[in-house]
Amino acid sequence: MAGSKVKDMSLAEFGRREIELAEVEMPGLMAARKEFGPQQPLKGVKISGSLHMTVQTAVLIETLQQLGASVRWCSCNIFSTQDHAAAAIAKAQTAAVFAWKGETLEEYWWCTLQCLTWPDTDGCDMIVDDGGDATLLIHEGVKAEKKYEKDGTLPDPSSTTNPEFKCVLQVLKDCLQKDPKKWQKMAAKIKGVSEETTTGVHRLREMAANKELLFPAINVNDCVSKSKFDNVYGCRHSLPDGIMRATDVMLGGKKVVICGFGDVGKGCAVAMKGCGARVFVTEIDPLCALQACMEGYHVVKMETVISDADVFISTTGNKDIITCEMMAKMKNNAIVGNIGHFDNEIDMAGLEGYPGMKKVNIKPQVDRFVFPDGHGVIVLAEGRLLNLGCATGHPSFVMSCSFTNQVLAQLDLWANKDTGKYQNDVYLLPKELDEKVARLHLPALGAELTELNKDQASYIGVPVGGPYKPASYRY
Amino acid sequence: MAGSKVKDMSLAEFGRREIELAEVEMPGLMAARKEFGPQQPLKGVKISGSLHMTVQTAVLIETLQQLGASVRWCSCNIFSTQDHAAAAIAKAQTAAVFAWKGETLEEYWWCTLQCLTWPDTDGCDMIVDDGGDATLLIHEGVKAEKKYEKDGTLPDPSSTTNPEFKCVLQVLKDCLQKDPKKWQKMAAKIKGVSEETTTGVHRLREMAANKELLFPAINVNDCVSKSKFDNVYGCRHSLPDGIMRATDVMLGGKKVVICGFGDVGKGCAVAMKGCGARVFVTEIDPLCALQACMEGYHVVKMETVISDADVFISTTGNKDIITCEMMAKMKNNAIVGNIGHFDNEIDMAGLEGYPGMKKVNIKPQVDRFVFPDGHGVIVLAEGRLLNLGCATGHPSFVMSCSFTNQVLAQLDLWANKDTGKYQNDVYLLPKELDEKVARLHLPALGAELTELNKDQASYIGVPVGGPYKPASYRY
Amino acid sequence: MAGSKVKDMSLAEFGRREIELAEVEMPGLMAARKEFGPQQPLKGVKISGSLHMTVQTAVLIETLQQLGASVRWCSCNIFSTQDHAAAAIAKAQTAAVFAWKGETLEEYWWCTLQCLTWPDTDGCDMIVDDGGDATLLIHEGVKAEKKYEKDGTLPDPSSTTNPEFKCVLQVLKDCLQKDPKKWQKMAAKIKGVSEETTTGVHRLREMAANKELLFPAINVNDCVSKSKFDNVYGCRHSLPDGIMRATDVMLGGKKVVICGFGDVGKGCAVAMKGCGARVFVTEIDPLCALQACMEGYHVVKMETVISDADVFISTTGNKDIITCEMMAKMKNNAIVGNIGHFDNEIDMAGLEGYPGMKKVNIKPQVDRFVFPDGHGVIVLAEGRLLNLGCATGHPSFVMSCSFTNQVLAQLDLWANKDTGKYQNDVYLLPKELDEKVARLHLPALGAELTELNKDQASYIGVPVGGPYKPASYRY
Amino acid sequence: MAGSKVKDMSLAEFGRREIELAEVEMPGLMAARKEFGPQQPLKGVKISGSLHMTVQTAVLIETLQQLGASVRWCSCNIFSTQDHAAAAIAKAQTAAVFAWKGETLEEYWWCTLQCLTWPDTDGCDMIVDDGGDATLLIHEGVKAEKKYEKDGTLPDPSSTTNPEFKCVLQVLKDCLQKDPKKWQKMAAKIKGVSEETTTGVHRLREMAANKELLFPAINVNDCVSKSKFDNVYGCRHSLPDGIMRATDVMLGGKKVVICGFGDVGKGCAVAMKGCGARVFVTEIDPLCALQACMEGYHVVKMETVISDADVFISTTGNKDIITCEMMAKMKNNAIVGNIGHFDNEIDMAGLEGYPGMKKVNIKPQVDRFVFPDGHGVIVLAEGRLLNLGCATGHPSFVMSCSFTNQVLAQLDLWANKDTGKYQNDVYLLPKELDEKVARLHLPALGAELTELNKDQASYIGVPVGGPYKPASYRY
Repeated sequence: MAGSKVKDMSLAEFGRREIELAEVEMPGLMAARKEFGPQQPLKGVKISGSLHMTVQTAVLIETLQQLGASVRWCSCNIFSTQDHAAAAIAKAQTAAVFAWKGETLEEYWWCTLQCLTWPDTDGCDMIVDDGGDATLLIHEGVKAEKKYEKDGTLPDPSSTTNPEFKCVLQVLKDCLQKDPKKWQKMAAKIKGVSEETTTGVHRLREMAANKELLFPAINVNDCVSKSKFDNVYGCRHSLPDGIMRATDVMLGGKKVVICGFGDVGKGCAVAMKGCGARVFVTEIDPLCALQACMEGYHVVKMETVISDADVFISTTGNKDIITCEMMAKMKNNAIVGNIGHFDNEIDMAGLEGYPGMKKVNIKPQVDRFVFPDGHGVIVLAEGRLLNLGCATGHPSFVMSCSFTNQVLAQLDLWANKDTGKYQNDVYLLPKELDEKVARLHLPALGAELTELNKDQASYIGVPVGGPYKPASYRY
Repeated sequence: MAGSKVKDMSLAEFGRREIELAEVEMPGLMAARKEFGPQQPLKGVKISGSLHMTVQTAVLIETLQQLGASVRWCSCNIFSTQDHAAAAIAKAQTAAVFAWKGETLEEYWWCTLQCLTWPDTDGCDMIVDDGGDATLLIHEGVKAEKKYEKDGTLPDPSSTTNPEFKCVLQVLKDCLQKDPKKWQKMAAKIKGVSEETTTGVHRLREMAANKELLFPAINVNDCVSKSKFDNVYGCRHSLPDGIMRATDVMLGGKKVVICGFGDVGKGCAVAMKGCGARVFVTEIDPLCALQACMEGYHVVKMETVISDADVFISTTGNKDIITCEMMAKMKNNAIVGNIGHFDNEIDMAGLEGYPGMKKVNIKPQVDRFVFPDGHGVIVLAEGRLLNLGCATGHPSFVMSCSFTNQVLAQLDLWANKDTGKYQNDVYLLPKELDEKVARLHLPALGAELTELNKDQASYIGVPVGGPYKPASYRY
Repeated sequence: MAGSKVKDMSLAEFGRREIELAEVEMPGLMAARKEFGPQQPLKGVKISGSLHMTVQTAVLIETLQQLGASVRWCSCNIFSTQDHAAAAIAKAQTAAVFAWKGETLEEYWWCTLQCLTWPDTDGCDMIVDDGGDATLLIHEGVKAEKKYEKDGTLPDPSSTTNPEFKCVLQVLKDCLQKDPKKWQKMAAKIKGVSEETTTGVHRLREMAANKELLFPAINVNDCVSKSKFDNVYGCRHSLPDGIMRATDVMLGGKKVVICGFGDVGKGCAVAMKGCGARVFVTEIDPLCALQACMEGYHVVKMETVISDADVFISTTGNKDIITCEMMAKMKNNAIVGNIGHFDNEIDMAGLEGYPGMKKVNIKPQVDRFVFPDGHGVIVLAEGRLLNLGCATGHPSFVMSCSFTNQVLAQLDLWANKDTGKYQNDVYLLPKELDEKVARLHLPALGAELTELNKDQASYIGVPVGGPYKPASYRY
Repeated sequence: MAGSKVKDMSLAEFGRREIELAEVEMPGLMAARKEFGPQQPLKGVKISGSLHMTVQTAVLIETLQQLGASVRWCSCNIFSTQDHAAAAIAKAQTAAVFAWKGETLEEYWWCTLQCLTWPDTDGCDMIVDDGGDATLLIHEGVKAEKKYEKDGTLPDPSSTTNPEFKCVLQVLKDCLQKDPKKWQKMAAKIKGVSEETTTGVHRLREMAANKELLFPAINVNDCVSKSKFDNVYGCRHSLPDGIMRATDVMLGGKKVVICGFGDVGKGCAVAMKGCGARVFVTEIDPLCALQACMEGYHVVKMETVISDADVFISTTGNKDIITCEMMAKMKNNAIVGNIGHFDNEIDMAGLEGYPGMKKVNIKPQVDRFVFPDGHGVIVLAEGRLLNLGCATGHPSFVMSCSFTNQVLAQLDLWANKDTGKYQNDVYLLPKELDEKVARLHLPALGAELTELNKDQASYIGVPVGGPYKPASYRY
């Protein structure tokens, strides 16, 4: 598929080699190719994806393509594209890619628009989304068109101070002037979206609650085989990876504060413990706090450790977790990073605007902010996801779990496009499929699964082949 | 309260000292006494409890009593009573206790009957149950009475080969001849039961599904502050404790097989790893199996390790996990134990009946079964729960979590006895109460809980004071 | 061999069953029986042993006996005898045993005397010692005899306030009056002692430095296969075992202070971490302190954590580690125990003599000392070794390492009694024998040892069969 | 100091920023600057160093320079130079540097020669060596000069097939033709060398044993504060760092084989365990093997796991650890790396020469060797040290321990140049200095060291200020 826009095509060969290595580490996707490839269940289906354009995503893209789909792709983060991965896909023409590392906000939304805009047709059939930006653009587009229909109002970028939303409004304004039905036609065509993250699901649930959701959504984020693997074990891998690549700092013996003890926090805390660090946890939820205690972590308020600790990692999905005031009290060269969600977990704006602040770039994605009193803090990836910014994100194996869920979700959405199974609401994948994803990943680790005999299955009241647990089971 | 029957009153003083020590380790129960004691919300309420009569249970019993209740108690396992705990309660007359270590099956069901039979009244107002035997006796009693009303049939102990059910039928037959309405009057009086275990909840759900449940039930087992603490961390403590007291065997360097990787299995596996053992896991559920892989355990079928491993622990709640055929293949002096639920996890019957088998009692709760070929296996606690049989069960702190849920459940059942909140169905405790239980345990560990500010709470859409997570959250 | 004095012969059968179980866990000793038994290298040799009379020691005793020796034994600690082990040996007459749990100091030294006094001969040929009390009695005896020879002075028990040394002097006084050459004849006969502990080795080195040592000594304590296993992994097992049996306290989430980070402290710290505790370490040696930091422990002074921590364990071999003043500042029901050496690691005398102190015995080996302000501390095993007092000491497997060294040491001392290899000095076992001990324990764990080829051996300059490391290697 | 030859001066600014960050992580070196800088104890002393030219080494170099020394430096590995570090030193002229990443063997030995050759003088006063190449060149130089003096023979590069030694002979031949006394004059001037590694110390000991050592040597490698920190904790950090940067492979759930369980192996094994891998260990030494068992690792022969494991890491210092024959049996994309010493731990030559082998470069320092049957192995850093080749080596903090030992060694050599304390032999640093190095690193970790009181010190027979342990203590 032609039409890609990537930074540097010369990296394509390197990207292809890395994709081939990743394939070995993504047994779920490879098994899906083998199982479903022959029937071509996505033959002719147009899929637009907005999800970090990495080597692993390349394997997802090419899996969808091998199942029959046509694919267009953009990244969901201005820093997260691996240019060699993008180049390899672009060169192979297995999808059209619009993504490069270090996009401006304008470029970012331009890429998202290209990803959603299909030549010679109204748009895509399905969306793969991460964080919900593709879905947001469509919904905002429809809203803008309706408003324009009603009273001729065009979106006004100057109406907002949010620099990102300014770009969105500009894109919508431009589109509206070219085709005032663009987004409505697109929305009508879409059979569904499968969403990768907590944040995206949160947005979808709000839209569903307000009856504003324009197409069905499958919540991939809350699959057990995603949330209990990607979040926990992905971060266990990529947090130390990111910190080490960025700073080369020895974590053994250091005091590390993990803000939040959800799945991401759990993975981060155990990783730091594995490195020999002393781990402190901050929590608002007494249940998670008590779990942290039982795991041998110190549960503290930030003020208790703020001037003692060496590393501070935000994992919450909330905002204002590490404030400028806190950073002013940290010791010299304390390391500050975010592996939660948006960059507002750390008060980057406050830091940038702090009177007398000096920002020294150490190397890409590593900055030292020097306070007027001379002490500095090392901020990773400008407050954005440090595992993506400073390392290469989650490793292939765990992304294979997430992405196999994506593939099964896309298959199920498409297979049921006319059955009425999915309304304009947010759905979990059925537990059988969730278990299937796990099952596809066991052989690569040499794991042997025990089989229930009929007698045992009936004793505990489950089918021999599963699902084995009630929906409420917490794993 | 008079009327107790315990083994040895001379142990009362020792029991009282242990109860006083346990109180310091059960901050949730002590906080409940402090918060609710003054209002006496259970004033005059009759509570019958069937739950391991240990030191920790004594603190639960006396908490209920301090909140105003009258209490009668029996154990839910023939081996699990701590005689000194029973004696201390009996002596203090804070409850009537019918329990001793090493009951026969006849004695066990006699005790259960005494616990449910209140002098000068039809029975109790509420039940605390563990495994569901008290609830079962009432439901079977009602069934027998109705059958008797219909056609005069008396329960026939000889109609079953199950030795335990034989006892149940004998008890019901005896009761029926004295008072043919006993169980129906009792059931009518009961406002609800709070159930402690997976197995008990399973039974309750079946009865509710069949519309046979005679009163409301609160599922304490699935509170996060119970299942994710008692099961995981309680077993992390009590598995090595039981094995070490029973066998004094060094676990470092040994190969240990944990059958099942649910919450109990997770706690057991990490405990064995903490002791320096090499841990193997057997699983039927691919999701749990993949979790075990990610935690660094070897996921294998039993046949792969049967002749190599040193210790085999069943944690499943299912049956026939460790069969006689498997034990025949184990190496000499392999240790076999159960920390799951019923003793049928290990094929004790097969072992006892194996041709040529020699059973050598090493010490109480530790037997060596010697196969005709001369190799023996060490079976703990006769296949029953080894942490109760060979050690003292879960430690006070984690039982405080479970039991504080029991107290809050009993309070909520009683407060809502006339509100219609609870029908004859199975309910979870509201998440606020679940979080409250955790919250009451944090100060004892010196944990500092962070508070959301309003802005953050609204950003993630939760109340400042919680609950903080959706019902589906897995912790 | 007749003549034993033990507490309760009725326990013999139970002891025998435990000894048989222990044999399976002591592969080094069983291999030694198999390798050396046929030649009877200790035929007719008289060995006196002063070492905790436990089940494991029984296997050592019977190994020495099966290699041909006649054996007399006493315990080296008034609390450490396992009466069933003593009874089993006494009943089998495989050695003469003088030991019971809970000896008085007078009884203790009487037992030591009986152990060293052989009917119809001057004494033993060799000694197995633990802590050096048997060696001390002989050396003090010789000193007293020489003084008596010189000026007729008898030892005077009233000359010392040390209650233990008072007993020693009484024993020597009594002996002197019966046979004024007893100890000199005995010392002349002795070919050597093999010593088990740091403390005993320390005493031996002092005597050697002062030219006072009367026979050769082999330092078993500093074998790698002893100190790096018994101290580290033995304590990793027996510390939590002792705490759990004594208190049933949940260690998960608790703050535990380990005083000292030598081998014992290292084993204790990792055990507590494995239980989910938060571990603090106190150290005087900057190298050990830095190791503790690197392992993720908090290195603190006692005053920093004294009022916060839940458990305090002394592991040092030094004195006054946990003072009365410190205990006065601990929180209510803080647990205090010693796994180092003598009971003066904890200021028991200060505690007993504290004005207004109330001592409440909870159960054997567990006392609550209540300060006048009402807060109490739980002291384990009266300040003596808690793993011996509250549990059963190190497990068989690790004792098999220590005791196989003892056997090899006794064999080497005897084989070289006339070669001049050993002078009146303190020797390490040759590294070949140390490696051999390890080698004998690997098959039981299914470990496969790799063999160097000749080319590799010559490349690194070692023999193919070892020893593989220079003497200075730290493991 | 002018005269440097580095690859890219434009990197100097980046290097300087990294050096400044590293200084904060190297508290021992900074404390040495503070303590000794004012007296300028190395004033005018010429030091030549051959040690990986990294950012951390830059801090060492500038510490020596700040204590008064003039410094010339080269790297001791053709791949290990960090060009930005070299550039920063060269630009600041704090030393003359001859080093760049990716030297040819000819260049490598040219750099070593430049490092040792001082303008206008016979050579350096002292050497800092890592692996012994600088010392070797001098000793071989002297040998060649003596032979030449004797019979006029010039070194003959064609006399050897070893490509590296060919270069050495060429250098010596060239030198000899310019100045036939160069190396003898240099050796006469040198007061000593401090050596960083096991391999270098091994060479020095051989020379000392053969009476060929030309100047005193201090063995820094075997300082406790070096070997027990750099080897263990440095590798714990840098092994996962190297693997992750090179391959992005998820280590959780994988089977990793660590060849060797010395200090490096111990650090590597625990790092892999911390990542959630299943760890297998191969060992030749039964003591180390038994330690690995006790730590919960599987001790196996290579053939047992060769076709199952995912990652193979050699840590031995021996050769032929991972042979070509083994690699032929590995599974597809098994990862193979060396963190021991020379690249002959892995049979790189065999691999390169394997009939039909295809070598695919994935990215710098990562190659896939594809066997004729189509399966490939991923070899890191061409079989050289993967933590240096694929990551940035040990982190600053742990290098600060090693390098502070180097500084104290250089100070002690110089202070005793005329005292006779050091002969032409190999010496350990005195334990006081070793403890001092540890002591200087504790404050940065917030560690509080406990002080012995006099009474305690005398009780255990050590000075209050240390040293605290006998020389034989194993830590």
